[in-house]
Amino acid sequence: MALIVQKYGGTSVGSVERIGAVADRVIRTCRAGHDVVVVVSAMSGETNRLLDLAKQLQARPNERELDALVSTGEQVTTALLSMALLQRGQDARSYTGAQVKITTNSAFNKARIQSIDTQAVMGDLAAGRVVVVAGFQGVNEKGDITTLGRGGSDTSAVAIAAALNADECQIYTDVDGVYTTDPRVEPRARRLDRITFEEMLEMASSGSKVLQIRSVEFAGKYNVPLRVLSSFSDGAGTLITMEDDVVEQAVISGIAFNRDEAQLTVKGVPDSPGIAYAILGPVAEANIEVDMILQNMGADNTTDFTFTVQHVDYEKTLDIVRVQAEALGAREVSGNPKIVKVSVVGVGMRSHAGIAAKMFKVLADEKINIRMISTSEIKISVVVDDKYLELAVRTLHDAFELDAPSALIG
Amino acid sequence: MALIVQKYGGTSVGSVERIGAVADRVIRTCRAGHDVVVVVSAMSGETNRLLDLAKQLQARPNERELDALVSTGEQVTTALLSMALLQRGQDARSYTGAQVKITTNSAFNKARIQSIDTQAVMGDLAAGRVVVVAGFQGVNEKGDITTLGRGGSDTSAVAIAAALNADECQIYTDVDGVYTTDPRVEPRARRLDRITFEEMLEMASSGSKVLQIRSVEFAGKYNVPLRVLSSFSDGAGTLITMEDDVVEQAVISGIAFNRDEAQLTVKGVPDSPGIAYAILGPVAEANIEVDMILQNMGADNTTDFTFTVQHVDYEKTLDIVRVQAEALGAREVSGNPKIVKVSVVGVGMRSHAGIAAKMFKVLADEKINIRMISTSEIKISVVVDDKYLELAVRTLHDAFELDAPSALIG
Repeated sequence: MALIVQKYGGTSVGSVERIGAVADRVIRTCRAGHDVVVVVSAMSGETNRLLDLAKQLQARPNERELDALVSTGEQVTTALLSMALLQRGQDARSYTGAQVKITTNSAFNKARIQSIDTQAVMGDLAAGRVVVVAGFQGVNEKGDITTLGRGGSDTSAVAIAAALNADECQIYTDVDGVYTTDPRVEPRARRLDRITFEEMLEMASSGSKVLQIRSVEFAGKYNVPLRVLSSFSDGAGTLITMEDDVVEQAVISGIAFNRDEAQLTVKGVPDSPGIAYAILGPVAEANIEVDMILQNMGADNTTDFTFTVQHVDYEKTLDIVRVQAEALGAREVSGNPKIVKVSVVGVGMRSHAGIAAKMFKVLADEKINIRMISTSEIKISVVVDDKYLELAVRTLHDAFELDAPSALIG
Repeated sequence: MALIVQKYGGTSVGSVERIGAVADRVIRTCRAGHDVVVVVSAMSGETNRLLDLAKQLQARPNERELDALVSTGEQVTTALLSMALLQRGQDARSYTGAQVKITTNSAFNKARIQSIDTQAVMGDLAAGRVVVVAGFQGVNEKGDITTLGRGGSDTSAVAIAAALNADECQIYTDVDGVYTTDPRVEPRARRLDRITFEEMLEMASSGSKVLQIRSVEFAGKYNVPLRVLSSFSDGAGTLITMEDDVVEQAVISGIAFNRDEAQLTVKGVPDSPGIAYAILGPVAEANIEVDMILQNMGADNTTDFTFTVQHVDYEKTLDIVRVQAEALGAREVSGNPKIVKVSVVGVGMRSHAGIAAKMFKVLADEKINIRMISTSEIKISVVVDDKYLELAVRTLHDAFELDAPSALIG
């Protein structure tokens, strides 16, 4: 008997029929002898419907009120799924984020979970109930409703699994696992049976949309085995786990890419300590997430500073950076929203030299100009013009033989 | 400067345009120098949409889950109205029933308010904010979401007004006040400027749908001046207040009627103490509200017991009563759902004899057979076959000269 946390996204609970199908799946897990906690998103379309109402009433909806508004979407799903379970004879009980005391900080729309009170949930499980928790939401110290930001239901599920010390956290989506790259871009992309937390984290932070990045961080930090599966078909999906548990490992696990980035550059900043903070501090204060950050020496004892943000934050970031740049006496601020980031990811990189060199050569052979490079221990990311996205992904997928399951190291 | 609680029903907040109009009205009240707390219902249609989803998933939706589900409707409106106020430059903040700690008992779907914590609301008002509270909902001791039953938003508003010691509680509806009877039945019905709590209570409990009965009870108990107004037109509406404040008083204030009643009769119950409790105890335990209750001596030391319930509870009540009747050795259980209750209401009755006699004569002249009679100090109700409803109302309205504002006592 295990304790399983299952998370179902918006399309999986998009209609009463689908909620019924989720109830059937949950009950199958119960009948296999497991305790089940279910975390649900809003029914697909509901969050957008609410956002649309909000925007009709306030041009830039107040962040606290927006969270109070959109959090109702998940609350509706929890009650409906509980009813579907009860109708099928399975005792169940719904909880909002506030009721299960998912305490977060006060960063409305982008809150971070600080603690979870598992007492009520444990009591229900002991009484044979399925517990249905609203994903994506929490409550701050003052009792205000907060949300974790879009996709935050994954994070809710993993955080609950960690707090409950669950045996596995299963994320049900509309895809049947993690692929070597997006099959819509490279039809020869292959589903991975296993991948490490680190690789998944790099895949997610590099643009793979399968899982929300913070959920993978959480899962890795608390060592919660995470499984991505399809709610529309059966299959083992992809298990995301510790490196030690992955016995056969390819050099490269996948090619990730992110269309949703924009680049900003501050040129000719007088080089002195604290430059990075002076530029990025106000950006962080505006709750804008910065992805890649590069700092190069420029001419005449000045430095050039480049970073990327999400498209949605591009204009706002430009405004902030222009103010800072002027204060710092920088020569020039420029930006480019028409870029993409392409990354190769794999823990095998650690033991195999020359991956970066091979990547750059493959791209150069296709005459793809590289605008930025950023590396981590198990990832190499390049920023290129957005028109090269498909070409870059397919060329790299082919060069690293990702379609062949035999490309493994012992 | 006064403290005003305003309550807006579902049609008043039925679209973003109407929510905007409500925001404008709230701001006009603020600009007149008043502090304002707004209590809102769900957007019209929303509660039914949610109920429909629930019924598709569970034939008889679980009561706790149903409250968790439908309470989202009001929460959505609070956030949207706050946004509309903020957009117009008026600081505002939304609260759910749980957040403002509207504590209720645990009778899901029909909960009763026990206490309200006014601390947060008072703090917001002191800071110049409009406070927007979700009507219809509360939270029990365990933190479960409860609802007060349909129309409960009126009760929420009055309870909040009482807790805050507000100067007036304004109930905005789709009618512009309280009428001598329903204008759809009697076109000569006249709007009343003032009516006493007691009369309004009798009108409401006798079927007038303008205000939810519990809200009038609350208002009378805590002496909260209550005003019914239209949210679609200007006008003073009808003020519901203490008898002392009503200087000119008609003998009869209005004719109320209720189509939503069904009659049950238990005949030939051996007459012994505790009969009423034995029959009605299990009915009350099933949370079914009983309206009129009559007990007559029958033949052979037995008693006949008659009472009315809402149509929706008719079949369930019959089942319960049949079990009890058999246990008590009663001769017969019968029921009739095709009845209506018609009532004449007025505090003037106290000082004017012969009202009942006049009422019975008027109905007899029209050959309307009276099936039950029930009287209070300021009300006389009769149950008649439903086909006589319109005839009875018009005849009584005419007989008591309710269309003439001159029919007053000094």
